[in-house]
Amino acid sequence: MQQTKRRMVILSEGFFGDLEAKTASGLIMYKPDEVVAVIDSTKAGRSVQQILGFGGEIPIVSNLPNSLKYGPNALLIGIAPRGGKLPSEWRQVIKQALENRLDVISGLHDMLNEDPEFSMLALLKGTKIHDLREAKKYNKVATGDPSRIKAKVVLTVGTDCKVGKMITSIEIAKESKKHGWNSHFVATGQSGMVIAGEGVPIDSIIGDFMSGAIEEFLSEKSSFYDLLSVEGQGTILHPGYSGVSLALIHGSLPDAMVLCHFPGREKIKNYQVKIPPLPEVIELHEQIARPIKPSRVIGISLNTQELTEKEAKEEIKRTEQQTGLPTVDPVRFGCQKLIQALEFLKG
Amino acid sequence: MQQTKRRMVILSEGFFGDLEAKTASGLIMYKPDEVVAVIDSTKAGRSVQQILGFGGEIPIVSNLPNSLKYGPNALLIGIAPRGGKLPSEWRQVIKQALENRLDVISGLHDMLNEDPEFSMLALLKGTKIHDLREAKKYNKVATGDPSRIKAKVVLTVGTDCKVGKMITSIEIAKESKKHGWNSHFVATGQSGMVIAGEGVPIDSIIGDFMSGAIEEFLSEKSSFYDLLSVEGQGTILHPGYSGVSLALIHGSLPDAMVLCHFPGREKIKNYQVKIPPLPEVIELHEQIARPIKPSRVIGISLNTQELTEKEAKEEIKRTEQQTGLPTVDPVRFGCQKLIQALEFLKG
Repeated sequence: MQQTKRRMVILSEGFFGDLEAKTASGLIMYKPDEVVAVIDSTKAGRSVQQILGFGGEIPIVSNLPNSLKYGPNALLIGIAPRGGKLPSEWRQVIKQALENRLDVISGLHDMLNEDPEFSMLALLKGTKIHDLREAKKYNKVATGDPSRIKAKVVLTVGTDCKVGKMITSIEIAKESKKHGWNSHFVATGQSGMVIAGEGVPIDSIIGDFMSGAIEEFLSEKSSFYDLLSVEGQGTILHPGYSGVSLALIHGSLPDAMVLCHFPGREKIKNYQVKIPPLPEVIELHEQIARPIKPSRVIGISLNTQELTEKEAKEEIKRTEQQTGLPTVDPVRFGCQKLIQALEFLKG
Repeated sequence: MQQTKRRMVILSEGFFGDLEAKTASGLIMYKPDEVVAVIDSTKAGRSVQQILGFGGEIPIVSNLPNSLKYGPNALLIGIAPRGGKLPSEWRQVIKQALENRLDVISGLHDMLNEDPEFSMLALLKGTKIHDLREAKKYNKVATGDPSRIKAKVVLTVGTDCKVGKMITSIEIAKESKKHGWNSHFVATGQSGMVIAGEGVPIDSIIGDFMSGAIEEFLSEKSSFYDLLSVEGQGTILHPGYSGVSLALIHGSLPDAMVLCHFPGREKIKNYQVKIPPLPEVIELHEQIARPIKPSRVIGISLNTQELTEKEAKEEIKRTEQQTGLPTVDPVRFGCQKLIQALEFLKG
């Protein structure tokens, strides 16, 4: 999927700039030169910069035909709806893309390749549909053997979904390179996989094979790197996704964990479940990791995007006092403190 | 699958009587009149009673052709191998069954219906293949809303796989009926599903939808019963299966848990992971359940099959002292004490 340079138009109708559209904003943050336009009719005419505060002059257009003049070669379904189902109104957009010989990249649970209309159209037009969540090939049970993973592993965990785990893991991989690590970001969700061009779609793998899939991937990658920065998924506090989160904790056999949190969020998004105080969440993660492989939470990553800079700094200080752990907002202030906290893994 | 009475021959080659063949022994324990023969050439000529200590005169035969004289109408793949893959030497037996117009019931991860040779043969002979782990239809994320489940829920959890969770859940459902409950056993694995004729194949469902699947099933069943006795799967201590176990804990929203254990087992079967002392395992389960819905472990169920009766009684006493909880071996001594411990859920 990476042979020719990607020139993507991102479908983000109605949601661009929201947390719901994190695939779009994540991709624009890390691979802006691969994005030629964004579709969101509610914000058409503005630039990506005006909405996100980064991303420059990438235009926002009202529909797919209006994006064609920017020369896209792929449509990215840039949204991760709850449960991963394809909204019916998007079928039209996907068909327009295929008819105009664009590839389609999708992180939805529904396999677009299994839709007869889409697959027929793609065949007819000679384009490809990339279903990032295609997970049939995973059929191994984890061995739980830490010696299989030759690199050190740092895993992000969270108090909720959409709190900054992906970005924190990417930033840890980037920043640690400056401190002597030969590090690598390991994507486990559709947004991360779009950015990295590889990864393990852990939430789409059948239950028995989730931990085995990540263990296998890390085992392979660990021959080439000495630090693997693994993107966490969901949270062990989540009524719907906790099983995925735990499989990732036990399958990735982390040497250290970083807890990600969205200050001010008191309940799991869309649920009535209260998020316990951070020290309790930290303890719970360390306790549940321990029987398989002891691992400590070595730092906190806050997503302070809704706070002023002053408020953000205060929140970071408050969190450091509350938890006794180095705390960062990797987007706003970098994540050097986390890399320092990982020093103990060297030598 | 239950319209005509099942007359099954169970394929258990090389493993009959072992823990690995728990589908076979579980079915014979609870539905002996539905089993006409067992295939295991290493024990052919003996009776089921001689191997299991129950099951009466059901014959053990050396191959499928030798079972035909007992009039089977279905072949059950009576073994749950690690990872669920189909051993190649069994293909022949399955083909023989289909050629003799037997249905095939399989709990393997490999979908026999997707095997062109098997599905073609079944079509040709007018027989059916029942893949118990078929899980494509599950696509709902859990709501985490306890009000959706109108009955009380008791879930078995374990220190490992194959420690007696299924049997304990069946026995709780049976025994509680004598104490005024309108109870129902809920199967979540292939053995339980063969016995119950229904259930949720939780370990075969894709990650995001595991908890949603069990929540949905319990929500439906809870209109008809006041106590749902849910079969647990694996353990949150298991390197490969912990994600499934946690999804079941958070998806079934249990009012109470029963911890199942195999005395003397110190490590997770086939792994190097040590099983912590029972009080720690109890605490871990209560801690991980709490954020979604507080739930207590109200009793312990031991599988004492490898102990003498005297040793078993001592082990039960020792466990009660160690944990402060009522302890049973439901097969050997019944599970009345657990039902008494569930009394607090009434009224």
